[in-house]
Amino acid sequence: MTQSLQPSSESFDPTEFRKALGTFATGVTIITARAADGTPIGLTANSFNSVSLDPPLVLWSLANNAMSFDAFRNALHWAVHVLGSDQEDLSGRFARRGEDKFSGLDTDEGEGGVPLLRGCAARFQCRTATQYQGGDHLIFIGEVLRFDRDEAAPLVFHGGKYAHATRRDPPDIKPRSAHLAGSFGEDFLGYLLGRSHFRFFAQIRPFLDHEGLDDMEFYVLSTLTLKPLLTEGQIAEGLAGVLDANRQRALDGLVERGFARRTAADGFELTDGGREAAIRLIAAAKAVESQVLERLGTGDAVILKTTLNRLLGVVDESAADVLWQSGEGERKG
Amino acid sequence: MTQSLQPSSESFDPTEFRKALGTFATGVTIITARAADGTPIGLTANSFNSVSLDPPLVLWSLANNAMSFDAFRNALHWAVHVLGSDQEDLSGRFARRGEDKFSGLDTDEGEGGVPLLRGCAARFQCRTATQYQGGDHLIFIGEVLRFDRDEAAPLVFHGGKYAHATRRDPPDIKPRSAHLAGSFGEDFLGYLLGRSHFRFFAQIRPFLDHEGLDDMEFYVLSTLTLKPLLTEGQIAEGLAGVLDANRQRALDGLVERGFARRTAADGFELTDGGREAAIRLIAAAKAVESQVLERLGTGDAVILKTTLNRLLGVVDESAADVLWQSGEGERKG
Repeated sequence: MTQSLQPSSESFDPTEFRKALGTFATGVTIITARAADGTPIGLTANSFNSVSLDPPLVLWSLANNAMSFDAFRNALHWAVHVLGSDQEDLSGRFARRGEDKFSGLDTDEGEGGVPLLRGCAARFQCRTATQYQGGDHLIFIGEVLRFDRDEAAPLVFHGGKYAHATRRDPPDIKPRSAHLAGSFGEDFLGYLLGRSHFRFFAQIRPFLDHEGLDDMEFYVLSTLTLKPLLTEGQIAEGLAGVLDANRQRALDGLVERGFARRTAADGFELTDGGREAAIRLIAAAKAVESQVLERLGTGDAVILKTTLNRLLGVVDESAADVLWQSGEGERKG
Repeated sequence: MTQSLQPSSESFDPTEFRKALGTFATGVTIITARAADGTPIGLTANSFNSVSLDPPLVLWSLANNAMSFDAFRNALHWAVHVLGSDQEDLSGRFARRGEDKFSGLDTDEGEGGVPLLRGCAARFQCRTATQYQGGDHLIFIGEVLRFDRDEAAPLVFHGGKYAHATRRDPPDIKPRSAHLAGSFGEDFLGYLLGRSHFRFFAQIRPFLDHEGLDDMEFYVLSTLTLKPLLTEGQIAEGLAGVLDANRQRALDGLVERGFARRTAADGFELTDGGREAAIRLIAAAKAVESQVLERLGTGDAVILKTTLNRLLGVVDESAADVLWQSGEGERKG
């Protein structure tokens, strides 16, 4: 805890205060209404919260100097849209000033003619119940007239940035045996990575068997699809972390089976047969991936990939990423 | 979008309304104060939100029928503690009724004698500015007198459950080459799992080399630490997804090196030498894990493990988990 206690409100550092407020995670909402002249208005807000269940009341607040302040203050009805994880773009659109925020959007018409956005995690159609002045913001309290919701991963805002959220698992689902002091359990990252990797690939393996390839040959084959010509150094980079001997054996195996050939320039390239096999296998592997990710759920799939990418950022500090970043045909080795 | 539009507020299904409100993710706070008789009081709330920057105002709301309602209503000061990801227990403690919530907790004393909890993501010490009645809740608006904050992953509440949050990466950090139509990119789950696995194990490999073991032998060795005696079937379960031939070769290699032996009961067990090597390697591997997870950050480490576990739940539908769950000495095969 950094004890940055502030002596009094007058000396508040606004930036620090914002950062402290930002430690509280929130969902993201878009509030819409219709101005007196009929123009649809809307803005992104994370100041939403529930107030009361009976009667059903919710609140949000708006800066006194917001462009649409007067229009919202005079609106009898407004709607709160809780955004899902896939609506970051919509959030950004309604957070910007000036542009026609509703351009090209399909909307429904709600209570009092309020434009309703689609594809949200929840929508609350409200009638203004009360407004309270709260410093430089006006607090809107609305009675919820109608609502609907959808199952969706939430869009989250934390620390001034968008975030993903995933539920915690209930602890201790799987008590594990601990025969040997200091033995591995299911919580060891290496176990989780290894088992996930092996189990995932086991679902692809029937397709590999069909082409007469083992796992490592498939890794090398798919690496060879990245560029027309790869040096051994580039292949080693693409398979960073794999034992050199295993990689070499797989490379030899591919050449032997006629899927790859050594070029005069001391590189490797796919043969036509290798390219065709790679395309078949990549399609099959992507189909397996789709099924697995669908069972995992879109939200968690994104989070898993995000955190694995971040893990690679800390275990992958070599120049290995160069291969995956650089343009076609570049040589390195 | 399930169009469960409700005709009017009278017919609201309270459970459905709660679920719809629950789509909005929030942080979790504990609000503390001191009752008129000096007793420290506190409760868990997720109705916190910021209101105004100048003057600095925040709000939260409390049910009219809450046990501590009168004490909070009469309090001149209160403090909001934004909880970090590791404070789920504290959240649960202050969400329950009756017990001495402060028992055994180290607290600081804040403005107006308010007890302040430690280790939170942020703390806001407030003076009651206004209270507004909002249906079945009272809305507390407080002027923030002091605040402090710490860098911490947030505790999040969503859909009636605790959740983890992790920031989204800015999109398109790593544009990747796409030489072959349909080739794999960094986004393919198999690539992410494989590379993470290999890169992580590459950091352990020097220790394996020292013992004269390859990766697969290490997997088998660590599986053999789980129980005093394992059948081949159990070993296969423990290494689910690994090619049978690789597993068999590794098992033979361990026997050959004198790290494991075949028993009369047609099972396998570690020799004393194998057990000692396993203990050394497990310690080294855990040290590597600690370093990697520290660089990744505690919050993301938990999220990565959570989502990998969930991935295993969908790719690991065999009975393979039995080995890791069951008690010592149980036989299966």
